Amino acid sequence: MTEKIKKVVTIGGGTGSFMLLSGLKNYPIKISAIVSMADDGGSTGILRDELGVLPPGDVRQCLVALSGASDILRALMTYRFEEGGLKGHNFGNLFLSALEKIKGNFSAGLEEAAKILNINGEVIPVTDESANLFMLLQNGKLLKGENEINHNFDIEKIGIEKNYLEPHARANKKAIQRILEADLVVIGPGNHYCSILPNFLVAGISQALQKTKAKVVYNCNLVNKKGHTEKFTLDDYVKMLNRQIGKERIDFVTFNTGKPGRKLIKKYQEKKELLIEFKPEQIKKRTYRVIRTDLLSEKRSSHSDADSLASMRALIRHDSEKLARVLMVIMDLGRYEGIINEIV
Amino acid sequence: MTEKIKKVVTIGGGTGSFMLLSGLKNYPIKISAIVSMADDGGSTGILRDELGVLPPGDVRQCLVALSGASDILRALMTYRFEEGGLKGHNFGNLFLSALEKIKGNFSAGLEEAAKILNINGEVIPVTDESANLFMLLQNGKLLKGENEINHNFDIEKIGIEKNYLEPHARANKKAIQRILEADLVVIGPGNHYCSILPNFLVAGISQALQKTKAKVVYNCNLVNKKGHTEKFTLDDYVKMLNRQIGKERIDFVTFNTGKPGRKLIKKYQEKKELLIEFKPEQIKKRTYRVIRTDLLSEKRSSHSDADSLASMRALIRHDSEKLARVLMVIMDLGRYEGIINEIV
Repeated sequence: MTEKIKKVVTIGGGTGSFMLLSGLKNYPIKISAIVSMADDGGSTGILRDELGVLPPGDVRQCLVALSGASDILRALMTYRFEEGGLKGHNFGNLFLSALEKIKGNFSAGLEEAAKILNINGEVIPVTDESANLFMLLQNGKLLKGENEINHNFDIEKIGIEKNYLEPHARANKKAIQRILEADLVVIGPGNHYCSILPNFLVAGISQALQKTKAKVVYNCNLVNKKGHTEKFTLDDYVKMLNRQIGKERIDFVTFNTGKPGRKLIKKYQEKKELLIEFKPEQIKKRTYRVIRTDLLSEKRSSHSDADSLASMRALIRHDSEKLARVLMVIMDLGRYEGIINEIV
Repeated sequence: MTEKIKKVVTIGGGTGSFMLLSGLKNYPIKISAIVSMADDGGSTGILRDELGVLPPGDVRQCLVALSGASDILRALMTYRFEEGGLKGHNFGNLFLSALEKIKGNFSAGLEEAAKILNINGEVIPVTDESANLFMLLQNGKLLKGENEINHNFDIEKIGIEKNYLEPHARANKKAIQRILEADLVVIGPGNHYCSILPNFLVAGISQALQKTKAKVVYNCNLVNKKGHTEKFTLDDYVKMLNRQIGKERIDFVTFNTGKPGRKLIKKYQEKKELLIEFKPEQIKKRTYRVIRTDLLSEKRSSHSDADSLASMRALIRHDSEKLARVLMVIMDLGRYEGIINEIV
């Protein structure tokens, strides 16, 4: 009896997706990476503004993660120019933008990029429409774009009135289709307001998640973000996501129990970025199961990561192989043993 | 009896080399393209100044000509950004510069580029050393770089005292080796002072040409350049080249006898760019043979050329297939018939 190849859909963006996909790609599964298109900072922001292209940065990281191309081609895709007028521009972003210009639209360019980079799986922009991310605070202040949101540290204190995209963006049809067909949908990890949530602000994604028969896993981040989700527990993240989806759709949450070194924790504490806590007593009856296990990376970041700048910042981070192993167990619960410490 | 594969070396730069190589690559020969490294204009000039890289522009065009990669990869290599801070930058130049930065030197980067682009043959920068092109005029005026030289139209009137590179540059060892081993060395066509001559200003190239047993062919340009070589006949070009080599080393000169349309000729005449003339009576006894035949392209330039900007300018240009066919005949004179109209 031949088994059907399992279909795994990831939803996220940025370094989080890079890490997740780097682990998943080693398994015999069909991977579809749905990627946030709200990025507007750095190299990506300049390209959006000046060339009118869709944001390439998050897609690029997923392409590199899934690429079976030579080391040098992967290194090229993550190379950042350091001098002159090109300073800060990522070569891979220029690659995707040039392809978009040549082919006439982002998705057609992405298809060519996937061929050139010999992708194992597929990378799907959550939307093909250009939209900007907004966050309206409860004091009436409007934050425009990832950059403004990321650098405002009063968000949690003031409270959020509304997150939205402007103009309204519809989901890529392929993204919806893949969610509906999936065996497993994996959300996160990643920057909560700028990489994860924007996917659910695109019309059609939440509806597809409501309908799909896939198991849905949420990979909780390892640390909270200062002024954003500083006081969030695991359950707070899940609550917000389920509310955004419009249904208690999360089935599993992965939670890291590995302990970073004391020095590292102190370093993070100084920046008010604390390890996320799971408080079993917080909720009486959960609609999801929490999988507690060591997911911590012990490796120092290397220059071959998707974006050396970003990964250098994240010293406390997921181990892509540990996480992938756990996700495979979740997909086929009961077949493996000894991987998961505890299911709550 | 198996025949040894013939070794053909081309010496030139820019659009001329692109045209030449596009034709040669269809033959079962080993091609080594030696390329001028004096370019300092446009995208290439900015990259040299800002990133401190070697000039990628001419090398890029040769890579594209010899590339067996997909159409889209070749289109990428010739794509030019049209807006914002990237305006004017050629994607292929950024590709080569990023590879140079990643690998640590231009030649190592070029090797990787050749693999990625699936090159039939090899592209060899005439030197690995960074040097600038200078032209000292007889009135003491010093022109620095291709750009200043190209836009000065009094060069012929005033007269040239000296062409030189500063600092002194030594030839790439591989370039010397390939010339010494060659069956055929093909010089030109191309911009006389900025693409052809700079190759011979690099120490070692002329000496190698003096020594090699290869047949040496010079592809005479089709039109003269205003204020530069406005009054040059075919024999004047050859004389200058032989003087630069230090030996009467040119064995054959290809000369186009095809006639462009009257309208086109008039258009060129208005810019003082006249068809180059061959005057059989100018010299009593030539040390070279002039091969007169139709070498004119009848195609309109297309966007898939190495550099659409450059090729749009050149409406009167060589047909790469016609030229390659003639060169193959020269390499093996006597085996073919009917290709060459007349040998003088």
